[in-house]
Amino acid sequence: MAGGEDIRLDPWGAIEIKDYNRLFRVFGIRPFIEVARLLRHAGMEPSLHMRRGIIFGHRDFDKVLLAKARGEPVAVLTGFMPSGRFHFGHKLTVDQLIYYQRNGFKIFVALADAEAHIVRRMPREESFRIAVEEYVANMIALGLDPKKTEFYFQTNRDTPYYRLVQLFAGKVTAAEMEAIYGDLSPAKAMAALTQAADILHVQLEEYGGYKHVVVPVGADQDPHLRLARDLADRMHGIIKLERPASTYHKLQPGLDGKKMSSSRPDSTIFLTDPPETAKKKLFKALTGGRATAEEQKRLGGIPETCSVYHMDLYHLIPDDKELDKIYTACRTGELLCGQCKAIAWEKLEKFLEEHQRKLEKAKNIAWSIIETPRF
Amino acid sequence: MAGGEDIRLDPWGAIEIKDYNRLFRVFGIRPFIEVARLLRHAGMEPSLHMRRGIIFGHRDFDKVLLAKARGEPVAVLTGFMPSGRFHFGHKLTVDQLIYYQRNGFKIFVALADAEAHIVRRMPREESFRIAVEEYVANMIALGLDPKKTEFYFQTNRDTPYYRLVQLFAGKVTAAEMEAIYGDLSPAKAMAALTQAADILHVQLEEYGGYKHVVVPVGADQDPHLRLARDLADRMHGIIKLERPASTYHKLQPGLDGKKMSSSRPDSTIFLTDPPETAKKKLFKALTGGRATAEEQKRLGGIPETCSVYHMDLYHLIPDDKELDKIYTACRTGELLCGQCKAIAWEKLEKFLEEHQRKLEKAKNIAWSIIETPRF
Repeated sequence: MAGGEDIRLDPWGAIEIKDYNRLFRVFGIRPFIEVARLLRHAGMEPSLHMRRGIIFGHRDFDKVLLAKARGEPVAVLTGFMPSGRFHFGHKLTVDQLIYYQRNGFKIFVALADAEAHIVRRMPREESFRIAVEEYVANMIALGLDPKKTEFYFQTNRDTPYYRLVQLFAGKVTAAEMEAIYGDLSPAKAMAALTQAADILHVQLEEYGGYKHVVVPVGADQDPHLRLARDLADRMHGIIKLERPASTYHKLQPGLDGKKMSSSRPDSTIFLTDPPETAKKKLFKALTGGRATAEEQKRLGGIPETCSVYHMDLYHLIPDDKELDKIYTACRTGELLCGQCKAIAWEKLEKFLEEHQRKLEKAKNIAWSIIETPRF
Repeated sequence: MAGGEDIRLDPWGAIEIKDYNRLFRVFGIRPFIEVARLLRHAGMEPSLHMRRGIIFGHRDFDKVLLAKARGEPVAVLTGFMPSGRFHFGHKLTVDQLIYYQRNGFKIFVALADAEAHIVRRMPREESFRIAVEEYVANMIALGLDPKKTEFYFQTNRDTPYYRLVQLFAGKVTAAEMEAIYGDLSPAKAMAALTQAADILHVQLEEYGGYKHVVVPVGADQDPHLRLARDLADRMHGIIKLERPASTYHKLQPGLDGKKMSSSRPDSTIFLTDPPETAKKKLFKALTGGRATAEEQKRLGGIPETCSVYHMDLYHLIPDDKELDKIYTACRTGELLCGQCKAIAWEKLEKFLEEHQRKLEKAKNIAWSIIETPRF
């Protein structure tokens, strides 16, 4: 790591990343803006998250776009640890999957039951239920097409996948894993190598043959990507694996101003929250408002530190012009927090009502398409 | 570990164990003699290695014998790391497999290609060839019935087996693995957890349902057994696994007085050695003879430190009375080393000639029954 920089990204921790620019300097992530103009060459319009700078960085995504433009197969892989309820932070990733799916990418979703069990000590039956009823069902209800998505439980995956986990173990040292992940238990080492197999195995013949893979993650997940890239290099001569591409999004700030987390229910809105619960959370959420209405009218609010504005930005107001109006009205002191929350609530209520209506059917589909591991 | 005792058994090292009694005190291995009288209750005659005290210790082998007497299914599991040529040290284990097979035990043989690759850095194609042509072929030529033996490559095993490897990772701490194995790389952690899965997975429904399992090992392999036993306990409530039983044999001393090892070809005789090579090795082997013939006639030789006597004891002279005569003639100074080597060579030459005659056919059988991993 560069002198004076002591950034360590902990994929299992709960850090907040304040200075995204440091990621470019220290870890070699490239600004997303550099590849944005290749999107149309690949037949794609920028997504909401790309347009709005939420997706701010990438590695090798240009290669994926150029490959897609040449007509080569492309895919997205993501993973979820099924250990809590599905919330708007997860939706941010799923929206990206849906975008890529509609643009012709094959979608793979790892349900990280092994990781949930060995790192988080989740009872297995509970993690199966959460994976299917919370994660998969909500993804389907959001619009991910289950027929074009390969969902799998880690502990249900077959031999070629686990062969990678085994072979990878010989290609890292304890010192390297500690440098990337900090304190390293056998559980974390196994979870990290398994996650590398998640990312890389979809290139194998057994899983449909080579395809260019992009992994959309929050910046805190970059250690997993760096490990997967190194392992792809180190398998040279043993098995042909290419480095995965990745994109990096800014994590949506929680309603309490900290990181969104299932373990602090007031930090986020779950997509299964009853309307009254969601409304309460939204109305007590941290805003960028001033101490008094008078002051706010005079100085304007600060959308950048407002969790409600970020709900609009990430989820509730897809129309850029409409969002610009909210932003400007806040900054100029025209729009006070109460009114602004009422606008957001109107949209959120409608969203939740429609989403939850779709969810029961989506649960049935989820159970019908996914085989849970035997023990 | 008990105060003052600093024994650490390193399954990847090359230590020699001088004081077997310490294993009873420090590690809780029980003397084999305590269970020997249950053999006949289970319908078995003691094997050559049992009769001769080569198998000196056990854990829970009494439970296996009692279960067998009740007519319950019993099995043996062993593993070989396919990274060198098959020698008389390996034959010691295979003779035990054959004995158990003839007594109605199901036999499982793990071909530890994952371990060979990640711990020993063996090229994979090379380890496949060695596994089949050296290990499996020699086992078949020695008399192991391939129709009643399940040989498998670790990286060809399927999901329920690898599910165990995953789940086990959450049940050990780094400190525990370091205490058992010393310096712990991700490669060794993976190899150790995989070996635990080798030992335990044969109890699962997917591999024929529950059976009482005994693992015959050299005492240096006990750390793997202790880990497997602890993991079986710790999986309580997640999956039903019982502690494996084990037996412990004294390692046959090498022809140079050190540990037998494929990496020092003069320390052992390979079962594929040309007769002239084997003869040379035997005739220059370390004996328990005295400095001069005169001295030896006067004081007698020392069979306990003689590698040729151990070839007789472990392999060449199955008849106890015949062996007693050699032993006594040596101790009384009647038999000098040259004559003794000539007797051993006569038996070894005959053995090698017959074995190597069977080997070509055994190789064909080996290739026909074993599927090698794809990459």
